Amino acid sequence: MVQIELPVVAINFKTYPQATGERAVLLAQHCESVAKEYGVSIVVAPQTPDLYRVSRAVDIPVFAQHMDPGAPGRHTGHVLGETLVEAGCSGTLLNHSENRMILADLEEAVRTAERLHLYTIVCTNNPTVSVAAATLAPSAVAVEPPELIGTGISVSQAQPEIITGTVEKIRAVNPDVTILCGAGISTGEDVRAALDLGAQGVLLASAVAKSDRPVEVLKSLVEPLRDC
Amino acid sequence: MVQIELPVVAINFKTYPQATGERAVLLAQHCESVAKEYGVSIVVAPQTPDLYRVSRAVDIPVFAQHMDPGAPGRHTGHVLGETLVEAGCSGTLLNHSENRMILADLEEAVRTAERLHLYTIVCTNNPTVSVAAATLAPSAVAVEPPELIGTGISVSQAQPEIITGTVEKIRAVNPDVTILCGAGISTGEDVRAALDLGAQGVLLASAVAKSDRPVEVLKSLVEPLRDC
Amino acid sequence: MVQIELPVVAINFKTYPQATGERAVLLAQHCESVAKEYGVSIVVAPQTPDLYRVSRAVDIPVFAQHMDPGAPGRHTGHVLGETLVEAGCSGTLLNHSENRMILADLEEAVRTAERLHLYTIVCTNNPTVSVAAATLAPSAVAVEPPELIGTGISVSQAQPEIITGTVEKIRAVNPDVTILCGAGISTGEDVRAALDLGAQGVLLASAVAKSDRPVEVLKSLVEPLRDC
Amino acid sequence: MVQIELPVVAINFKTYPQATGERAVLLAQHCESVAKEYGVSIVVAPQTPDLYRVSRAVDIPVFAQHMDPGAPGRHTGHVLGETLVEAGCSGTLLNHSENRMILADLEEAVRTAERLHLYTIVCTNNPTVSVAAATLAPSAVAVEPPELIGTGISVSQAQPEIITGTVEKIRAVNPDVTILCGAGISTGEDVRAALDLGAQGVLLASAVAKSDRPVEVLKSLVEPLRDC
Repeated sequence: MVQIELPVVAINFKTYPQATGERAVLLAQHCESVAKEYGVSIVVAPQTPDLYRVSRAVDIPVFAQHMDPGAPGRHTGHVLGETLVEAGCSGTLLNHSENRMILADLEEAVRTAERLHLYTIVCTNNPTVSVAAATLAPSAVAVEPPELIGTGISVSQAQPEIITGTVEKIRAVNPDVTILCGAGISTGEDVRAALDLGAQGVLLASAVAKSDRPVEVLKSLVEPLRDC
Repeated sequence: MVQIELPVVAINFKTYPQATGERAVLLAQHCESVAKEYGVSIVVAPQTPDLYRVSRAVDIPVFAQHMDPGAPGRHTGHVLGETLVEAGCSGTLLNHSENRMILADLEEAVRTAERLHLYTIVCTNNPTVSVAAATLAPSAVAVEPPELIGTGISVSQAQPEIITGTVEKIRAVNPDVTILCGAGISTGEDVRAALDLGAQGVLLASAVAKSDRPVEVLKSLVEPLRDC
Repeated sequence: MVQIELPVVAINFKTYPQATGERAVLLAQHCESVAKEYGVSIVVAPQTPDLYRVSRAVDIPVFAQHMDPGAPGRHTGHVLGETLVEAGCSGTLLNHSENRMILADLEEAVRTAERLHLYTIVCTNNPTVSVAAATLAPSAVAVEPPELIGTGISVSQAQPEIITGTVEKIRAVNPDVTILCGAGISTGEDVRAALDLGAQGVLLASAVAKSDRPVEVLKSLVEPLRDC
Repeated sequence: MVQIELPVVAINFKTYPQATGERAVLLAQHCESVAKEYGVSIVVAPQTPDLYRVSRAVDIPVFAQHMDPGAPGRHTGHVLGETLVEAGCSGTLLNHSENRMILADLEEAVRTAERLHLYTIVCTNNPTVSVAAATLAPSAVAVEPPELIGTGISVSQAQPEIITGTVEKIRAVNPDVTILCGAGISTGEDVRAALDLGAQGVLLASAVAKSDRPVEVLKSLVEPLRDC
């Protein structure tokens, strides 16, 4: 399994035009330079067609945004783990809120990724689903507390129990899984709050991938990681 | 719109290990060398993570195996047309039997591809669906006569009406769409039969992508195209 | 095939609490009494678990809101045509915007329904998709002009071309299919406008199924049908 | 929550013609008469359009084969819990292998069912998925050991660890959930073996629903329950 240094900041490029094609490469290079300058762990998740060119251009871990279950051979148009490995990926997001997976497929994808030494971050929408995902033994679970989705409330402003409660429940079934905070993160203050509450990293998208000044934003986001 | 010279042989790499990663590049280069040597039109459709590296390596048209509908921004893990363009694609398969699409999504994908000048090949499973697909005005329809799917019967052995009947029905609603034969093709004889019966090309996968001697197979497949 | 008298007003009960269980029966009886009093054609589409009790209670045609493709035997939890017939259904909606279907499945469902003499109303989201659906030869297509969806604009207020254009395009590929207007209908004036513009009926939901006074609304809606 | 007496034999009617419409009612009545004669607990799961007529005809618990997540209002063609309650259902199967669910939808459906006092049986395909499902706190998990699916091996012939191992893993995360054996059951001997190995009941389909002599089969199946 690829080792991801913790705490980690994972950047989902989604399909933002500012993070597509050559601009995906540029953004990943910005992430790499900040990671090196600050000595912190940053992971990038560009779109599937951009994975190869990004992984060739940077030394930080490159993740897919999704991986399908299934064995090589058929499955036209599907994104299999074996092909992600060939494209230079170190891991993959799974079950993102924009790409929810069937439970049995999710488990199969986690197992396939495990066999291929790909790191898996399973996104989840509430504490109960987070616990269920944790029992599948992925590398990490990225919890998105419903109180922080689309409400404009950030982790640093929210009630601490929202995060700590989920962390405790996950730990009861899986003491080893990495726990990321996957919502309500746009500033360094939010990252610090997430880490203080027991998360081992964060997963975010627009604050970096849509920014006109991504380097500046990245520096402010990773500042709290230097102290860890 | 990218112009694809007709008749055309389109090769779906599926997720065959022999057509993944660096071997996808190699297979595409074989296709390119045969296309140039014989002066014929060959299109390759590698897996999504391989699109960029293949399109950088060859001058023949590179197609995606699937494209999702949707506008850039969200859609984590989806494969959007804008990103395919950036990856060097000239077109995409749509609605492959291993990746069937919702009708409204298929139409939206065809429209988006059109706007982005991406060539679209819509796969269909019977004459009625072929006609429906043709009314969406994609660049091409790849018909898979049910009599040729999984029966071991090739186009050259089948009753001519199986192909000619579908061609006639499609022409009644769309005189311009390119018609490919998408099943029952593994030899040059099959290609010739398909062309004789009114198809303007073929879509095939395993005969090339799983072959130990793909160049040899490709040469035999494109032989009938030289005469056109 | 069940004959549905035209023009028709089809009422989709959706999953409104006011149109569920015993209240579905009551609403269907209201529809029946208005249909008889006014001598007009009304079709009701209650939820799947309510189909049997509604079809037992009324003499007007009862439609399912959805039907899955597939042959009897497996398919746990799916809604097959054979079972709809046993439940007393005369037809089914297909491809509703809240239940979009894969093109190949839609075609298979239309064929199965045809064999079982079930009337099919295929919902479509724009003129191009309406034409594609019409080539599948369902009993009817319910067109939802995008200009009338969620805009608050009703058919009677909209530019006539929005309906007439779609009707013309459908007629070019299928002179026989019944054309319903599936959006922008909440008053008798809207029904009249839809009929004037070439539709042979309407499909609507909330104006009746959420109403506190459904009989009154129904009477106003069917008033224009009396004159036909 | 409806209380289901344990041990239980749950019969999935699937879409078998022998268990559709009036024949679903008849089969459910057979199940009821055997349940009463032998003083055992039998649950029937007919198709969605048959739920109302079956629940009206028998006093044993009637389950749906599937339930969709979502709140009443929209969701045309979906099967919501509120409507199942109105149709006389006591519970529902969820995530059957022929109707796999997205993890987040499955959790939402379990929560909705809980609120509506509907009993939930979540089907699962291997030990890891069984544990994940158990953390969602459904009423029951029906485990389908992969060694018993499509292999012709029955529970009574299989190695005991196949069942006991899964039971232990589930108990570690949820001491209360009912555990059913959902594969490899066609005789009373199989039922006895399943109960001996820690299951609290069985879920089966074809052995009863496709049988020419369902009463006889049912009697042989429930014989071991009399001793419990």
